[in-house]
Amino acid sequence: RHGRRRADGMNVNGTRYRTVWFQDDALKLVNQPLLPHEFRILSITDYREAARAITTMVVRGAPAIGATAAYGMALAAIAGVSLEEAAAVLTATRPTAQDLFYAVKRVRTMVAGGADALSAARVIAADYEAACESIGEHGADLIENGMRLNTHCNAGWLATVDWGTATAPMYKAKRRGTRFSVLVDETRPRCQGSRITAFELGHEGIEHAVIVDSAAGYYMWKGEIDAVIVGADRIAANGDVANKIGTYSSAVTARTNGIPFYVAAPLATVDLSCPSGRDIPIEERAGEEVACMFGRPVGLSGTPGDPGRDGPRVTVRIAPETSPVRNPAFDVTPADLVTAIITERGIFEPARIGEAFTGRPA
Amino acid sequence: RHGRRRADGMNVNGTRYRTVWFQDDALKLVNQPLLPHEFRILSITDYREAARAITTMVVRGAPAIGATAAYGMALAAIAGVSLEEAAAVLTATRPTAQDLFYAVKRVRTMVAGGADALSAARVIAADYEAACESIGEHGADLIENGMRLNTHCNAGWLATVDWGTATAPMYKAKRRGTRFSVLVDETRPRCQGSRITAFELGHEGIEHAVIVDSAAGYYMWKGEIDAVIVGADRIAANGDVANKIGTYSSAVTARTNGIPFYVAAPLATVDLSCPSGRDIPIEERAGEEVACMFGRPVGLSGTPGDPGRDGPRVTVRIAPETSPVRNPAFDVTPADLVTAIITERGIFEPARIGEAFTGRPA
Repeated sequence: RHGRRRADGMNVNGTRYRTVWFQDDALKLVNQPLLPHEFRILSITDYREAARAITTMVVRGAPAIGATAAYGMALAAIAGVSLEEAAAVLTATRPTAQDLFYAVKRVRTMVAGGADALSAARVIAADYEAACESIGEHGADLIENGMRLNTHCNAGWLATVDWGTATAPMYKAKRRGTRFSVLVDETRPRCQGSRITAFELGHEGIEHAVIVDSAAGYYMWKGEIDAVIVGADRIAANGDVANKIGTYSSAVTARTNGIPFYVAAPLATVDLSCPSGRDIPIEERAGEEVACMFGRPVGLSGTPGDPGRDGPRVTVRIAPETSPVRNPAFDVTPADLVTAIITERGIFEPARIGEAFTGRPA
Repeated sequence: RHGRRRADGMNVNGTRYRTVWFQDDALKLVNQPLLPHEFRILSITDYREAARAITTMVVRGAPAIGATAAYGMALAAIAGVSLEEAAAVLTATRPTAQDLFYAVKRVRTMVAGGADALSAARVIAADYEAACESIGEHGADLIENGMRLNTHCNAGWLATVDWGTATAPMYKAKRRGTRFSVLVDETRPRCQGSRITAFELGHEGIEHAVIVDSAAGYYMWKGEIDAVIVGADRIAANGDVANKIGTYSSAVTARTNGIPFYVAAPLATVDLSCPSGRDIPIEERAGEEVACMFGRPVGLSGTPGDPGRDGPRVTVRIAPETSPVRNPAFDVTPADLVTAIITERGIFEPARIGEAFTGRPA
């Protein structure tokens, strides 16, 4: 309990955790803006707080957002709030991640079919966990001894319920005994790469190093990256992929250098009603995410042992207050730049992602 | 005096400044790590301090490094230190910027020819100023009304003696009355874009917005960037360009989207003894530049009016202390990705950059 789980789960200082779960009448979430400096679990009992956790990115990552929204629907049902109202509040939080809409709709469908909302949410979370583990098994087949991988943002276990999407093949390959290393893009502006992916990989004992986003192209040019694996926030019917800002540039430089570029995502991230990436709404977030940076103060010298190790977190301003900022949170990678999409049903050519649904239970 | 200069110089709160000059027996430098929050001039009277200012990036940008090194040689000469010793110390500071080697060698050549070192340094600085102004005139011809430009890092007046390289065409176009705007890549890890270029453009009244580096590709894909202009730290004989990390990715995504990609640099940045970009040494800097961020504390909320506006600057840690970092400061853009190189002698195809030297005084 308290997030402890089966022995093959994800490691934080020797304890195994999920990112999102339901326990003692509360939705439990890893409080992600505190990472990597503090690992704390947040308890939420009001669906509006679940919505706020999504908006403020206390929880982020398309599948983790989906599972949180599903449990948010359950909290609303427990409180006697109409699911229509809860669905409206929860889906208004962020516009790009398909899993948000998928999970809220699926709870409603299951409740209409006679299930209670909490059971529905638990099924959705368990399905995400199983899907990510299966993505890991399929994707691990692509990772060979000695490979030097690159990933962008955090599509790790902390972006899902468990295992991750882009990281699931890494965690499975590691368990198979494959030796490989990972260059982690820091992923400005919120640094989910250096804050979260590096945290995950370190705790799982996977060899890695953090780089600035724009250095990935340099290492591709030098021949030091063998494959790129990223997650997705929404995949259009034609295989175009919306994902964290910077994914497109990564895909373009990978293509120019002849490097395979894989997208790992559960089918819940695919939006067949969206014909192409041009139809996916791209969220624009506050300029302060770019103009400022949040972290643990370490003193001017940056040397360890400075005061502030356990003190309050501080935000520092970088850009002039008078300079406008544009802060798109996502971009679109055209299907033809994606080598393959790794799903729980196997590995698909992007343009044929629709075929992954064949025979899918209604 | 105190940096005030002719009326067409660069504006900081109504006063006109150079980046590097010599006055009252001292080398004067704009203290760049304090930007954009404080504008302060540093006085240096020891050539070893000039070297330290280059190493610690108190002064940065290939031409500004060149001018600083030249004045450093003058300080050594004034102190009776041998120019051989001073040259060794000054050229050991940073390995990539060609201007450093060019300027130190040129002082020695001029002194060997009978000039005093300070006069030689002043000639070199004045030549940089004239070259950058001329780059501005040539480059401004490329900027049309309504154009949306993109630049990476700071190749502005604060990277040179005056005018800048990539920004010189912008400042000249602005004085011609051309309307245009600039998307400024923040340029991780040191954020010379959001700290310095945004500061410069704001004070010169040029419409601009700051973006994360990886968003440039998104705006290219959306059709919202018409041309990219960057500077250079070293240009090889075949036209390959070493410049701030991220330049390569920018050039690749520009090419994929059919967008002209210009490099602006004085001929002092061209190294004809270097056959190709693969021969240019790439500096790797401390991992703390990526793992930490330096700025003015604004409080947890990031709202203006917080304490810390005039207080000490703070460094915050972002990445886990246990995660390794790789921090290459530059990358190499192959000549075939560069549309043209804008020099003080006109605009050249990269592969024909050697021809820019034809008829050059020995």
